[in-house]
Amino acid sequence: MTASASPTPNLSFEESFPGSRKVSVDGANGIGVPMREITLSGGEPPLRVYDSSGPQEVDVRQGLTPIRAGWIAERDVSEAPERDQSLGLPMPEGLRRRVLRGNGPVTQLHYARRGDITPEMEYIAIREGMSPAFVRDEVARGRAIIPANINHPELEPMIIGRAFHVKINANIGNSIVSSSIEEEVDKLRWATLWGADTVMDLSTGLQIHETRQWIIRNAAVPIGTVPIYQALEKVDGVPEDLTWEVYRDTLVEQAEQGVDYFTVHAGVLLRYVPLTADRLTGIVSRGGSIMAKWCLSHHKENFLYTHFHEICEIMAAYDVSFSLGDGLRPGSIADANDQAQFAELKTQGELNTIAWAHDVQVMNEGPGHIPMHLIKENMEKQLDWCGEAPFYTLGPLTTDIAPGYDHITSAIGAAMIGWYGTAMLCYVTPKEHLGLPNRDDVKAGVIAYKIAAHAADVAKGHPRAQAWDDAISKARFEFRWEDQFNLALDPVTARAFHDETLPADGAKVAHFCSMCGPKFCSMKITQDVREYAAAQAEQERGMQEKSAEFRERGSRLYVS
Amino acid sequence: MTASASPTPNLSFEESFPGSRKVSVDGANGIGVPMREITLSGGEPPLRVYDSSGPQEVDVRQGLTPIRAGWIAERDVSEAPERDQSLGLPMPEGLRRRVLRGNGPVTQLHYARRGDITPEMEYIAIREGMSPAFVRDEVARGRAIIPANINHPELEPMIIGRAFHVKINANIGNSIVSSSIEEEVDKLRWATLWGADTVMDLSTGLQIHETRQWIIRNAAVPIGTVPIYQALEKVDGVPEDLTWEVYRDTLVEQAEQGVDYFTVHAGVLLRYVPLTADRLTGIVSRGGSIMAKWCLSHHKENFLYTHFHEICEIMAAYDVSFSLGDGLRPGSIADANDQAQFAELKTQGELNTIAWAHDVQVMNEGPGHIPMHLIKENMEKQLDWCGEAPFYTLGPLTTDIAPGYDHITSAIGAAMIGWYGTAMLCYVTPKEHLGLPNRDDVKAGVIAYKIAAHAADVAKGHPRAQAWDDAISKARFEFRWEDQFNLALDPVTARAFHDETLPADGAKVAHFCSMCGPKFCSMKITQDVREYAAAQAEQERGMQEKSAEFRERGSRLYVS
Repeated sequence: MTASASPTPNLSFEESFPGSRKVSVDGANGIGVPMREITLSGGEPPLRVYDSSGPQEVDVRQGLTPIRAGWIAERDVSEAPERDQSLGLPMPEGLRRRVLRGNGPVTQLHYARRGDITPEMEYIAIREGMSPAFVRDEVARGRAIIPANINHPELEPMIIGRAFHVKINANIGNSIVSSSIEEEVDKLRWATLWGADTVMDLSTGLQIHETRQWIIRNAAVPIGTVPIYQALEKVDGVPEDLTWEVYRDTLVEQAEQGVDYFTVHAGVLLRYVPLTADRLTGIVSRGGSIMAKWCLSHHKENFLYTHFHEICEIMAAYDVSFSLGDGLRPGSIADANDQAQFAELKTQGELNTIAWAHDVQVMNEGPGHIPMHLIKENMEKQLDWCGEAPFYTLGPLTTDIAPGYDHITSAIGAAMIGWYGTAMLCYVTPKEHLGLPNRDDVKAGVIAYKIAAHAADVAKGHPRAQAWDDAISKARFEFRWEDQFNLALDPVTARAFHDETLPADGAKVAHFCSMCGPKFCSMKITQDVREYAAAQAEQERGMQEKSAEFRERGSRLYVS
Repeated sequence: MTASASPTPNLSFEESFPGSRKVSVDGANGIGVPMREITLSGGEPPLRVYDSSGPQEVDVRQGLTPIRAGWIAERDVSEAPERDQSLGLPMPEGLRRRVLRGNGPVTQLHYARRGDITPEMEYIAIREGMSPAFVRDEVARGRAIIPANINHPELEPMIIGRAFHVKINANIGNSIVSSSIEEEVDKLRWATLWGADTVMDLSTGLQIHETRQWIIRNAAVPIGTVPIYQALEKVDGVPEDLTWEVYRDTLVEQAEQGVDYFTVHAGVLLRYVPLTADRLTGIVSRGGSIMAKWCLSHHKENFLYTHFHEICEIMAAYDVSFSLGDGLRPGSIADANDQAQFAELKTQGELNTIAWAHDVQVMNEGPGHIPMHLIKENMEKQLDWCGEAPFYTLGPLTTDIAPGYDHITSAIGAAMIGWYGTAMLCYVTPKEHLGLPNRDDVKAGVIAYKIAAHAADVAKGHPRAQAWDDAISKARFEFRWEDQFNLALDPVTARAFHDETLPADGAKVAHFCSMCGPKFCSMKITQDVREYAAAQAEQERGMQEKSAEFRERGSRLYVS
């Protein structure tokens, strides 16, 4: 059982995005916000677009520069002793960090409610093209979150909320197959290079602690986890043996490492479990099924629910955000929008209120498999029941019949729910339901989801979204082929596809393309039409001038 | 300038769809409707799904069996002399057919309005799972068309209308690059194998007549063309030199060959052309730009518009359906839903009325590049202005920034507009805007569009749609891996993806998968939960029985 060999080599930023360079947009507090600047020809100004790729060519055994360290130090925090949770694997010195803990709530929500604009908010304001006060207000209102653990100083702050760019998450994780730690860090870099805004580490195997340490120290994006997975490892994979204490210690362990958001399946209540018995595909969420089994085995309420206040206290002290899991999400079209799913969603809303009372940031996870006509109801109910907290959905997949292509079945649903208001879309790769994604699959999933997120941004009218479409369309119309490639989400693929048919360099400046050939090209004809129309207009203007001249002269003739 | 080598070998139906076989569902009039029957394990009945792949292993130099010949012979038709339009290329004897012409209108619309149920309608009723009378009524009402030229007897009849399965079209065509005639026939077979419901032959090069003859004689699906392309070839590619006479002769030539629908850009009116002058991407339709150039050059109204009645008379005599072109469709997000586009759509509606007056079947072509929030308006206006004639859209693409992935940017829009009511979706391949699609691209485009069409069928509630989703989800939940692969749109890819991670044959009967491994599997846990819940229910029932027994006994004790 081995992960498949990866056919695509690792590429640098420059190799992946020819004609682009990283620029830093400076703000107060020493803030420098990275953007991808695409150089254009034909007298066009360069275009700057959002960039999540993170610092390049960093030694993975040293980790990234802790750019937030100074900002965090100004908060009410104390140093905590570093506890070694590793299984004997030596941790490279460069990946060790001192551990901080808030003396009270140190969350972005806490500061926003006080009226403070944190450096993270200023950073995000530049990144999104919004005012810092607006960023603060959306966070204070609970409509947006800034997942940014105080123990993750390497983070380039970003925001998840429906007034901002729709974000995408990529999952990585070694499962029980033998992928190495370096491979996981490599997957992280690869996913963010193509546009992943956050990465969830879903590892379930050995070395889970070490893997996470390597990932977080090298992550410029927020890292999410599902702590119940590691807790389950600690009780040898037997759900019935899980206890609150094991879970609590796992939360603290991960919070001290710097995980930015936790998926917590606290809404899977004992009384909801039987609601899934008649489903076509039962419970398909791993976390959901673990908690369901625990509840039934003990005839007790979910301990994540009964201990929710204590969980909030832990998370407030590190500024870990909630991603309230949807453990009863439908796993098939047949089970979409059923009683079990919506019962849990309503409970998520109740839990949001508790999280907010503790100054803890929270978003809600959503489905899953949903046919198009039932998607909107999910968004509407979430907005209504969950107090407008950010929604974070997996797809949704709009049909079940295309395993091998579920990045497409789900990109359809993701684009739609993004437009309706979902703040972050969890990607799906072509290997969904079938196997573990390799590098090509990760890239295919990320690109499909960047498409969905950007299409949603355009439809929502994000002020910076359509400029990108317009730039590439103008380049296309003006036969600036190199610009068209360089402006693409995936320039190298765009160029390779073009060159398959017209490899000659001359073809890239030609005023025609391979679809119609040199003699017959609709875009060329349109340019002719435009010139013709302009000439016509000119001619008409000339006639009118002559006519006006004549009238003027005539009028003089007769009057003077 | 050569088409790229194709990496995927030609596959037979059996190789492409393991576990499936073609079955024939018999009806009256010697009708046998092909379906794909998927054999399942675990005691599940076989699933039958719509099949467009056409007869297999037929000698391309003989063409398909003319299954409709007897039905057509019963209409009011006369034999016309076969005119040789070839450029000296010998036509294989087996691909020659006698040419028929109606003595009056011989269209499906004509018969439907008379109240007749044609054999084609009976065939379609079986194919769609609807009643023959309903099929007839939808055709009579103009809400659906059956593109079925009387000179295309090899056709397996199908219907395009929003009450039926959403259909997809694949474009082929040799452009001016040197793909051979056999290659085009091969593309046709490849596209229909994966699910194309109609194929448009957009050839613009030499041997255009011969290529079309080969294609039609080997096509079990309707073939569409854009006759202005061939007319333009006849005047050496100079739009200004086009005349009504050249165009008319081309229409007759193609109608006599058996083309089932013509794209006619009759809605590009002289006064609409200047409306495109300020667009970001002008006129991007080839037909639209040709007619715009003609109109401006001559300062005259579009001859397709002024001669529309004569066009209708020709089409009525062969039962060629209109696909009224959208020559002013937007070529970028920036130009979506503008005045030029909607002006033409309104004229399409006016032309529909004229076509119907001549008993000619008609559908309307639609965009193009449309952001999600503007898609619905297109469908609503088309329904309103065009009398509910079937809508046939290209995508729409929901963003411009992803050349190389436009099968995905457009599958999003296609699924949505299909749900809203579009009857047929014109596919887009990953090579759109970049180059000529090879076999892999054609397959990628067709699969993406089958996904979009099926997702739309599910959302619309087509009575046969969700059974497919349910069958595959049930197989997934029950770990029937082989069934899951065989039920997929692309079984071979699904299996290959699975085997990349878990190649052993034993894994295909294992009650776990590569995502979680044998020790930890959510679906397995759910099964445990279900058994547990059933045991609980049993126990409760036992307790109640005991309690009832006790009460009964007790009642006896005290009363007797």
